[in-house]
Amino acid sequence: MKVLITGGGGFIGHRLARELLERGTLAGPDGAPAAISAIKLLDRAFPPAPDARLTCVPGDLSAPGLIDAALDRDTAAVFHLAAVVSAGAEADFDLGYRVNLDGTRLLLEACRGLQRPPRLVFASSVAAFGGDLPAVLDDATTPNPQTSYGAQKVIGEYLVSDYTRKGYVDGRSLRLPTIVVRPGRPNLAASSFASSIFREPLNGVVCECPVPESTGIWLLSPRRVVDALIHAHDLPAAAWGVNRVLNLPGITVTVAEGVAALRRIAGEAAAARVRFAPDERINRIVQGWPVRFRTPRATALGFAADPDIDAVIRAYVADEGLQVS
Amino acid sequence: MKVLITGGGGFIGHRLARELLERGTLAGPDGAPAAISAIKLLDRAFPPAPDARLTCVPGDLSAPGLIDAALDRDTAAVFHLAAVVSAGAEADFDLGYRVNLDGTRLLLEACRGLQRPPRLVFASSVAAFGGDLPAVLDDATTPNPQTSYGAQKVIGEYLVSDYTRKGYVDGRSLRLPTIVVRPGRPNLAASSFASSIFREPLNGVVCECPVPESTGIWLLSPRRVVDALIHAHDLPAAAWGVNRVLNLPGITVTVAEGVAALRRIAGEAAAARVRFAPDERINRIVQGWPVRFRTPRATALGFAADPDIDAVIRAYVADEGLQVS
Repeated sequence: MKVLITGGGGFIGHRLARELLERGTLAGPDGAPAAISAIKLLDRAFPPAPDARLTCVPGDLSAPGLIDAALDRDTAAVFHLAAVVSAGAEADFDLGYRVNLDGTRLLLEACRGLQRPPRLVFASSVAAFGGDLPAVLDDATTPNPQTSYGAQKVIGEYLVSDYTRKGYVDGRSLRLPTIVVRPGRPNLAASSFASSIFREPLNGVVCECPVPESTGIWLLSPRRVVDALIHAHDLPAAAWGVNRVLNLPGITVTVAEGVAALRRIAGEAAAARVRFAPDERINRIVQGWPVRFRTPRATALGFAADPDIDAVIRAYVADEGLQVS
Repeated sequence: MKVLITGGGGFIGHRLARELLERGTLAGPDGAPAAISAIKLLDRAFPPAPDARLTCVPGDLSAPGLIDAALDRDTAAVFHLAAVVSAGAEADFDLGYRVNLDGTRLLLEACRGLQRPPRLVFASSVAAFGGDLPAVLDDATTPNPQTSYGAQKVIGEYLVSDYTRKGYVDGRSLRLPTIVVRPGRPNLAASSFASSIFREPLNGVVCECPVPESTGIWLLSPRRVVDALIHAHDLPAAAWGVNRVLNLPGITVTVAEGVAALRRIAGEAAAARVRFAPDERINRIVQGWPVRFRTPRATALGFAADPDIDAVIRAYVADEGLQVS
């Protein structure tokens, strides 16, 4: 079977591609494991030396004709991860809507024209939630996003659900927690600090944390989110029913708790590299995000969170081949 | 102040225009009553002999340039009522998205370009709700529409809220109950029967009701919905806060209760004109709609429902100048 990953040049998209190549199968249209014959990655840029079994389709999701080049008539699985991130969409309103809304519609329209409706996994976000939030969110909490990124994600969920109801795709939307620890460099996402406070100190670099240490983060590791994307794809349509949107499980960790775990794993010198440099623009966005969830539906469907923040940090250390004291 | 009503050639839009002319004022940008200097109506068609104080702008909401012709640089109030109705959007997927989603975006973009952000009242719908519904919905119930019309309305709400948050408009979205009694003729809306069971018998015509008599309807009269649209406009922004979407109050009436009221008001002969002719396509849509709500937020904000179905029917009889036994 053929697979498309939008945002396939990004960190999660690329990890997903590698994991799919390693597993070699995805649930086919009849639910039985089907061999993956080809994976296309659509993105603006790609890491160096992508695996030879992957085809890279370079360009912007909303560019004319690009999605048609990325989909084959018989593409059976689509993972839609491409997006302008939160602070980026907040800074450039038009760009955010063009990529995050128009791009998603273009993709859904192209899927509608395929030989048969593909399974489509849409990476939404807990940025869907905001405004007057309960202390603990659950599967019944209504999204009220306070960023354009969040609004675009929620709108994408409704589009995916409606195209699914009409039988044009078999869609599943996952609201991702903040992914921690991302490798590489800080990016425009308001959540960038949530990885930086671990990554930079482990690399011997000082991290300037823009939010107070009491700030809570609802997080999931890269390994778990890749597992979740594949699991969401492989679940039969009947398991989803008429509700195609799911809050993924996660764990709640404050910046202070994260720094304490860093100290346990990499020592005082590493922990001391986290400095606090308040940034009101970032802080205002982050303080509006939800911190605690109950996710009984995800658990019942077989999705799982990381056991604790120490496991998340140790997995990053192992994945990156780092030395810690 | 200048006012635009999209869908201003339709029944509610036209009643709203007449009511605005009669009142003569709307809350201005500073909250104080401001004299209405002009009202433009945008729609595909208009009733005969519109009031001379109204300007009609004929065309499709999504047609290039039309919205720019309908808005003036200093338009201060926009009532966005234009839509392809439920059964219409279900029958023609592309048309529904073009008018109900693209049209709404075009309107919001045009508003963003005005001299100052206009107040914008968006007519959403209880068709936002569907799927696994609680027996009684409330202000916390999450929309899960089971029609494209419902999906497009929810998406419109999120757009209005995001444009409001960015300061491009000062938006307010109202989820309208089924409006009963509409005058005129049956239309493509799946809810058309809810008016027909009263209107046709009162006009001496047999009505074929496509749903069982146990079917409940969450309804509001035309008088009350026009009052609600104006009240939503006139409330200060602070009263809405970060939540710009509201379930309007209504009353729950079964078809059987409606026919009983018709009998009380217009006699047995009228009631006997309601025949039952099941239509599975219509029934499937209608049975997915919510029937009972608690609307404490709307009540607190000063919105009001009709006292009972008898009052709704009597208001229709009075408005249309009908003779009843």
